[in-house]
Amino acid sequence: MANATVNNGVNVDALLAAREALKGAPAAAKFTWRAACKWQNGTNSTTKIQGFHGLGQEQQHKTEFSFEADHPEIFASEDLGATPIEYVLVGLASCLTAGVAAVAQNRGIQLRSVEAKLEGTMDIQGILGIDSDVRNGYDDIKVTFKIDADASKKDIEALVAQSQKRSAVYDVITNPVNVRVEVV
Amino acid sequence: MANATVNNGVNVDALLAAREALKGAPAAAKFTWRAACKWQNGTNSTTKIQGFHGLGQEQQHKTEFSFEADHPEIFASEDLGATPIEYVLVGLASCLTAGVAAVAQNRGIQLRSVEAKLEGTMDIQGILGIDSDVRNGYDDIKVTFKIDADASKKDIEALVAQSQKRSAVYDVITNPVNVRVEVV
Repeated sequence: MANATVNNGVNVDALLAAREALKGAPAAAKFTWRAACKWQNGTNSTTKIQGFHGLGQEQQHKTEFSFEADHPEIFASEDLGATPIEYVLVGLASCLTAGVAAVAQNRGIQLRSVEAKLEGTMDIQGILGIDSDVRNGYDDIKVTFKIDADASKKDIEALVAQSQKRSAVYDVITNPVNVRVEVV
Repeated sequence: MANATVNNGVNVDALLAAREALKGAPAAAKFTWRAACKWQNGTNSTTKIQGFHGLGQEQQHKTEFSFEADHPEIFASEDLGATPIEYVLVGLASCLTAGVAAVAQNRGIQLRSVEAKLEGTMDIQGILGIDSDVRNGYDDIKVTFKIDADASKKDIEALVAQSQKRSAVYDVITNPVNVRVEVV
């Protein structure tokens, strides 16, 4: 139940209402998220995000979001944007953090500050093709939360655990997703 | 072999030299990528990226990259940034695209344009906790490349296949990664 004296800026009542509404209309729960990427030069590309599909119809973000990606100078690139693998950390950090705020609101816990530091380790012998036993991606990601809230350490740990349990990005990273790549 | 008459802006000679150098110094191939996330309000957070570790020492991007994330208005949020799950598509799109450019350079194929459209489907009955048999994240991601290059359809398809084979983000999404979450 949402607690009126607590305000983390999350409209939990609306989310609970949406949950009730979608129970009777499961087709509306099917979402499609989209991105459009354009190669610029070298390892630099620009990816734009605006439209998506959900609640049974086309939806639009209020504004178009645009992201530059590139590789760092130590890989002889221009470093014009974050490295693709760093975007995965942005997604994970923001997904778990939004979840902490939503769960805290639902549990009547006032948050004062939430910070997360992420570290993903990777052996680039994989992507460089030096050793085929080395995977291309992260072998391990560590997320460290520092949370100041009106709650015990135990309740704060439970908040984070619940956020993990319902995190879309955490699921995508820790479990396999089917990816189809086509050329037209 | 790099082809001097082809220029996709990727310094393949430097990458091949790095590969040779790292064969004799595998410890330098261990990278740590980092992100620091700060909750703002509601589902809105800001994630910053600048430092990382690799080639045996601390490294810095030329500039700090900062990313706003939020949820859309249809989830009763402010829509102040891309949705966390959309950042996963940004990472995948930019990783595969950079790979296409690098492989094309190595194979002597001049690219004129590379575009990728991504669609990730997700049933939000998972994150809303309506049906515990529904996963939280994407059930399927489709990437569609449109590439204009001095090469046959078959050679272009082979470019994309090789990019997939060496993509860090593709690996992270299609295979499980160990994620540890701690509260300090």
